[in-house]
Amino acid sequence: MNKSLILVCNDDGVFAPGIAALIEVAQEFGKVVVVAPDKPQSGSGHGITISATLRINKIQEEENISIYSTTGTPVDCIKLAVNEIMHRKPDILISGINHGSNASINVIYSGTMSAAIEGAMEGIPSVGFSLLDHSIDADFSASQEVARRIIPKILEKGLPKGVCLNVNIPKLQYEEIKGIRVCHQANGNWVEEFDARKDPSGHDYYWMTGRFVNFEENSENDIALLENSYVAVVPVQFDMTAYSAMEEINSFDL
Amino acid sequence: MNKSLILVCNDDGVFAPGIAALIEVAQEFGKVVVVAPDKPQSGSGHGITISATLRINKIQEEENISIYSTTGTPVDCIKLAVNEIMHRKPDILISGINHGSNASINVIYSGTMSAAIEGAMEGIPSVGFSLLDHSIDADFSASQEVARRIIPKILEKGLPKGVCLNVNIPKLQYEEIKGIRVCHQANGNWVEEFDARKDPSGHDYYWMTGRFVNFEENSENDIALLENSYVAVVPVQFDMTAYSAMEEINSFDL
Repeated sequence: MNKSLILVCNDDGVFAPGIAALIEVAQEFGKVVVVAPDKPQSGSGHGITISATLRINKIQEEENISIYSTTGTPVDCIKLAVNEIMHRKPDILISGINHGSNASINVIYSGTMSAAIEGAMEGIPSVGFSLLDHSIDADFSASQEVARRIIPKILEKGLPKGVCLNVNIPKLQYEEIKGIRVCHQANGNWVEEFDARKDPSGHDYYWMTGRFVNFEENSENDIALLENSYVAVVPVQFDMTAYSAMEEINSFDL
Repeated sequence: MNKSLILVCNDDGVFAPGIAALIEVAQEFGKVVVVAPDKPQSGSGHGITISATLRINKIQEEENISIYSTTGTPVDCIKLAVNEIMHRKPDILISGINHGSNASINVIYSGTMSAAIEGAMEGIPSVGFSLLDHSIDADFSASQEVARRIIPKILEKGLPKGVCLNVNIPKLQYEEIKGIRVCHQANGNWVEEFDARKDPSGHDYYWMTGRFVNFEENSENDIALLENSYVAVVPVQFDMTAYSAMEEINSFDL
């Protein structure tokens, strides 16, 4: 049997503990190629590099594992991996393990999830994993067990066309997790609270901070399931058309 | 009657001809606040600045028009505008006029459309305008006429919750445009063709290039309508859940 070819990416950078944990699991399922940003790129969304050049750095090259970093965004990494490094599409793309939640609206800001979405756009079965713990010392062992369970299912069954998975994992021991649930992205948003400061010259500058607000209550959404100790799996699509709004907009007679 | 408060953004930067054309139209409908990136940010997607500081620069401040640039992405601009500059939500957010198409999958890469999507996330009626002409000398007069038609409709009727509009305009004189049609985002994608070069030290570097491929034929999608001389209006949502895939993913027994 041919081994599966597995592409690994993230947005916290190639040296983040979370990607090391995911690489460890990936190696149990096939030949691994890692192509990840050379520096943290959290919040890069679906950004790409079109007005600047890109570099690829080879970090490690062995028969069963190759590791590359690039100067680009997570989405750039996927494009470079497929076109310039692997010269073919992998059997699966796994992104993460992200240090911190990508549940609810975070999916749209997340470089980790944008890498998975780019994979889906290219027709690659793609999954992003995120642990609800920002700490550099986060314990990824439960997330690794979840990845061990989900990766072979995707390798076996594939994913529907145009769809990738957003897997968020609560900060718990594996035994404490109640199960894995498929659900929708919670209707929530960030309420920004910019931290305005003065630089040594007396000029204003700002740090973006904020708090997340969940507008949905008692629902089968990802935020609610995570709070109830479940792993939340949201199928994510890149067709952003609001089909349900087409009739109303049509009635505007634009 | 109170004048409308209109927020203007883009991703080509505050000094691009496209935003100047949109500001001109916006001033016909109310008090205008411009908050746009201080440099081109094409392809920035829904990126935000979370690990670096942000600056706001006041360029112009008059009774009916204020212009600010920021060091951030288009999405940062919207967050800064609402929280630190306007201290309230505008009556409408208009983004563009983008130099180049944001039809089909380009919506996900576009900073101009991400600004409009961020507006929708904040509950602001939001519209992005894009002209199918990348040229710095592009003729925005037809696009201005389209904006003149659409802006008052949105000010009057609002938009459905969680939805913004992606308006793409063909490179034609206004008289040559056949009409304005509401449609879905075409199922297309970029086929990347990286241009690999050697720097003066002999090391490889890459420029991202590519060509767009439309996988849909003879359909009422944005690409097809633009080719047939229509303005294409796609209602866009930020809930990325693939509801139609939930049953299949559930059957995987993850």
